[in-house]
Amino acid sequence: MEQFEKLNKSTSEELDKILGIPFKVLDKGFIRVVDYMGTDSSIVQAARVSYGVGTKQVSEDEKLIRYLLRNMHTSPFEMCEIKLHIKVPMDAWRQWIRHRTANVNEYSTRYSIAIDDSQQTLPGEWRFQAADNKQGSSGFVQEEEGKLLTKQEEEFHKHARDIYNSRIENGIAREQARKDLPLSTYTEAYWKIDLQNLLRFLKLRMDPHAQYEIRRYAEVIGEEILSKWCPLTWKAFKDYMFNSTSFSGIEMDVLKQIVSGTPEDLEKTADESGWLKKRKDGTLVRNRERLEFEEKISKLGITAPWNK
Amino acid sequence: MEQFEKLNKSTSEELDKILGIPFKVLDKGFIRVVDYMGTDSSIVQAARVSYGVGTKQVSEDEKLIRYLLRNMHTSPFEMCEIKLHIKVPMDAWRQWIRHRTANVNEYSTRYSIAIDDSQQTLPGEWRFQAADNKQGSSGFVQEEEGKLLTKQEEEFHKHARDIYNSRIENGIAREQARKDLPLSTYTEAYWKIDLQNLLRFLKLRMDPHAQYEIRRYAEVIGEEILSKWCPLTWKAFKDYMFNSTSFSGIEMDVLKQIVSGTPEDLEKTADESGWLKKRKDGTLVRNRERLEFEEKISKLGITAPWNK
Amino acid sequence: MEQFEKLNKSTSEELDKILGIPFKVLDKGFIRVVDYMGTDSSIVQAARVSYGVGTKQVSEDEKLIRYLLRNMHTSPFEMCEIKLHIKVPMDAWRQWIRHRTANVNEYSTRYSIAIDDSQQTLPGEWRFQAADNKQGSSGFVQEEEGKLLTKQEEEFHKHARDIYNSRIENGIAREQARKDLPLSTYTEAYWKIDLQNLLRFLKLRMDPHAQYEIRRYAEVIGEEILSKWCPLTWKAFKDYMFNSTSFSGIEMDVLKQIVSGTPEDLEKTADESGWLKKRKDGTLVRNRERLEFEEKISKLGITAPWNK
Amino acid sequence: MEQFEKLNKSTSEELDKILGIPFKVLDKGFIRVVDYMGTDSSIVQAARVSYGVGTKQVSEDEKLIRYLLRNMHTSPFEMCEIKLHIKVPMDAWRQWIRHRTANVNEYSTRYSIAIDDSQQTLPGEWRFQAADNKQGSSGFVQEEEGKLLTKQEEEFHKHARDIYNSRIENGIAREQARKDLPLSTYTEAYWKIDLQNLLRFLKLRMDPHAQYEIRRYAEVIGEEILSKWCPLTWKAFKDYMFNSTSFSGIEMDVLKQIVSGTPEDLEKTADESGWLKKRKDGTLVRNRERLEFEEKISKLGITAPWNK
Repeated sequence: MEQFEKLNKSTSEELDKILGIPFKVLDKGFIRVVDYMGTDSSIVQAARVSYGVGTKQVSEDEKLIRYLLRNMHTSPFEMCEIKLHIKVPMDAWRQWIRHRTANVNEYSTRYSIAIDDSQQTLPGEWRFQAADNKQGSSGFVQEEEGKLLTKQEEEFHKHARDIYNSRIENGIAREQARKDLPLSTYTEAYWKIDLQNLLRFLKLRMDPHAQYEIRRYAEVIGEEILSKWCPLTWKAFKDYMFNSTSFSGIEMDVLKQIVSGTPEDLEKTADESGWLKKRKDGTLVRNRERLEFEEKISKLGITAPWNK
Repeated sequence: MEQFEKLNKSTSEELDKILGIPFKVLDKGFIRVVDYMGTDSSIVQAARVSYGVGTKQVSEDEKLIRYLLRNMHTSPFEMCEIKLHIKVPMDAWRQWIRHRTANVNEYSTRYSIAIDDSQQTLPGEWRFQAADNKQGSSGFVQEEEGKLLTKQEEEFHKHARDIYNSRIENGIAREQARKDLPLSTYTEAYWKIDLQNLLRFLKLRMDPHAQYEIRRYAEVIGEEILSKWCPLTWKAFKDYMFNSTSFSGIEMDVLKQIVSGTPEDLEKTADESGWLKKRKDGTLVRNRERLEFEEKISKLGITAPWNK
Repeated sequence: MEQFEKLNKSTSEELDKILGIPFKVLDKGFIRVVDYMGTDSSIVQAARVSYGVGTKQVSEDEKLIRYLLRNMHTSPFEMCEIKLHIKVPMDAWRQWIRHRTANVNEYSTRYSIAIDDSQQTLPGEWRFQAADNKQGSSGFVQEEEGKLLTKQEEEFHKHARDIYNSRIENGIAREQARKDLPLSTYTEAYWKIDLQNLLRFLKLRMDPHAQYEIRRYAEVIGEEILSKWCPLTWKAFKDYMFNSTSFSGIEMDVLKQIVSGTPEDLEKTADESGWLKKRKDGTLVRNRERLEFEEKISKLGITAPWNK
Repeated sequence: MEQFEKLNKSTSEELDKILGIPFKVLDKGFIRVVDYMGTDSSIVQAARVSYGVGTKQVSEDEKLIRYLLRNMHTSPFEMCEIKLHIKVPMDAWRQWIRHRTANVNEYSTRYSIAIDDSQQTLPGEWRFQAADNKQGSSGFVQEEEGKLLTKQEEEFHKHARDIYNSRIENGIAREQARKDLPLSTYTEAYWKIDLQNLLRFLKLRMDPHAQYEIRRYAEVIGEEILSKWCPLTWKAFKDYMFNSTSFSGIEMDVLKQIVSGTPEDLEKTADESGWLKKRKDGTLVRNRERLEFEEKISKLGITAPWNK
């Protein structure tokens, strides 16, 4: 039989240092690493199964990881797995659990008394509805108003807990007593996920459009945990998945006309996309795709010609 | 090129009759069929891909479906798909969503005002904590006590909705205003799942140990919808998955001794399993596995010899 | 912030002893453990997230694992993960890969020269088509005949490799040169799976109806690897998933009549199921469900009354 | 109870016209639509579950679909499902099956005689190994040489089929007789997948780097089937997923310097990325990331300054 290299259980010294230690999130939540399998090296090792003997020298680890990530060669990243213990408000958990490719054991309020903690919003933390984004928030309520809202909430949380407790004391089944717990109630869970799916979670939940509460958890996972666990992957993730900018076929055409074309061709190209429809008064009709394009090219220091 | 039989889009006359029509569940919830693909015939059709030409006469449809189901040949059942529109309390939805192999679009309380409906418990519906099952309920609270609990809940629901409304009126972002909605608040969703995974959902959620609220939804899906959509599969499901009884290797050994063996061998076999450990006073130590076995054989009209 | 117990990366001393060491399978295949996460204790730990503080004494680990397994509480088993390096003929790999909930990196014959190994069948290993099972085999071909078949195969393997090599030498792309490799050609892969899905794999592939070749791999995984990694789970698996016998609702009814009923009721019950349909000459029509039932009760030492 | 709009089973007139009709692929393969559920409208309908009553006028369907697609709002696309009947060489099928989120019933060569068709390569179709891409091909072998290779293959296919037939005739089990079928042997399958996962399949398999054989299948699915089934999604897919160009954070920095910066800053930015490392003779060291960037900006009509 052929010769095999000796194998050791994968370990990350950096991650071992924080194993089991909770990172605080929001007012009473936390995240801590329970266990893990694999490191940056395991990604490389798995990718090299494909290449057979004798190719190890071809690519250094970082280059290979960057190559895999930007080319959607996702399977080697699935070879790493991490298990977290989290404490999170049920409201954020409702979003979290939508990431289906993960393993979950949640604290059971059928079996046990509900955790007696609610996420409380401080006077300075109440956010206004965003005007331009139907599912976002923008700016904070004034202190005075905020105090009222916070006081209102405190009373409500007390009311909710009193009801829950009195049901329990009256012998009502836990599975039914819990029916009026507010979504701000904390829950706990073990959450296990492979690195590939974790990157997708972070891509979506570290995004500025993600809700603040879950974004805080995602940021802690990325910056405090993944950065130590798989530093090369974390760096590549930021470059290729988080800070990248994608231009559609149409956008590439328009951008080409802007940087290398003639004004006439540009006008024509942009017009074909329907971006330059005008009102009777000559102003441009609001067009979300055009606005997004303008934002993208502003990152290149370019102002759209039609705005000059 | 070879000859192909003509294909038609699958349809079920029986299911078409109830398409879009809501079945009421709990006090304000519902389930209705939005769309579907496949029928019992599609399962047979897919299974027969494996068998090549000329074998159609071998098995009748029902026999084949029963054969596939009891032998864990699950892939042909995945060829059918159903899409439901449901309205369900968030509490039950938290359990529902744990079935990961499904597609979901839920009503967004980030984008829109939360649905103004809560599941209310009537005076006669408050359940006691089960004594013998840490995660179950058993029996109902007396009417008088129930009235109090219901009144308490009504006031609480009003309090919760007042808080939510006043936040919204004060311009608080919907994504934050919703943080204290009680779990009894209704949500809506489109839920799409293949038949194989639906059977697993029904197996777990129609089970008498499932919580009453989600069980009601499962029963409606099974009895009102699946029974019309794929009647042969529904019948086979009940026989092989829902009403079946599984005996472990040990249980088969003990049962064999009971029905065909000698008293001495029985004693020995049961003893090896650790079931017959006794207290000093000669009574049997409580043993969950033995108790479950006793319950199973009672369905066969057999009383365990050690209880005689 | 609350107190947390210290956590250590999970390890299994028994499994560490065989880490990286290949177990031989078939003529040139192998399986070896590359990495893993979790042990029996991790299952218990995850299950106890649900129960809150103070319940640790309630159940010993083994009882809890057995309880979880027989009640389809599958999520705690998903908390363990194992990564294997395998070498397997493509024919068996085609079956293996149908288990979708796993992570895979396979040796690439687009990128590298195909592995120069084929699974060879020895003269005594050629199996006859089973008469009673369309997808099984039964009995072995005689030595003399077997020698011919083996020789034939050797020549064919040589022909196949010659063709492949000559294409490669002529500069044909590896992705095209490989198109005529026989299914007996070995491939290699890293295969990572959680324990819950591994149990399902073993349930299906250790089954006597599974094809011999893949069954050999499943047996090695179960008996040599899982037995060391999670011995309590392995034992519970054998009792509840592998050696268990499931009786359908109908079968329970008939069995009840056999062990506790009257002959008249038995006849009636069995007849309703359609099992006792007779030919003109009075013999029973072949009925697969009845035959399977007869086989099950024979394990209880019972002969069906209609066969007496 | 609230009012519900009437629902009808989704249908696509355009797709119904080709239902069941095979599109030829490669020499003997095909793809045909067996069944489907949902259309472009179903995507819109599902997305609107989130928005509550009264928002239908806000977005036209196409704009909404484009918005969902470019913002990774993937769940509404999962609401559509299609079932295809395909005939494909096992070699391409090995790649195909790696897309795990799909439902599959494949023709069984354990149960039935293997399909007597192999994919044959014509004299003009033999491709050379690519020099610059370890897993690609490039250019075609000369006619004369091609004729030899084709003849060689024909003889080999005959040899393979003779062996298979003689095993079957000698009573060898089908599951074993098949072990030496060449990968070019055709298989058939029912393949069912939701639209979201189909788009991912097409993204990867219509890519110019995908192997020619599977690319042909992907192209037929995209251009002949998806274009009729969900024309708005197909158009948005091409713009945002297929013809889009993604620039990493680093690439955006460099591009910004090129189009709006100073030569000094550009030099600095590009140098930090490690792209401009030079050999002793002053020429640039080969750097894959830099080369990919150069290719991207060439689509904008830009030549990298370091190449001028």
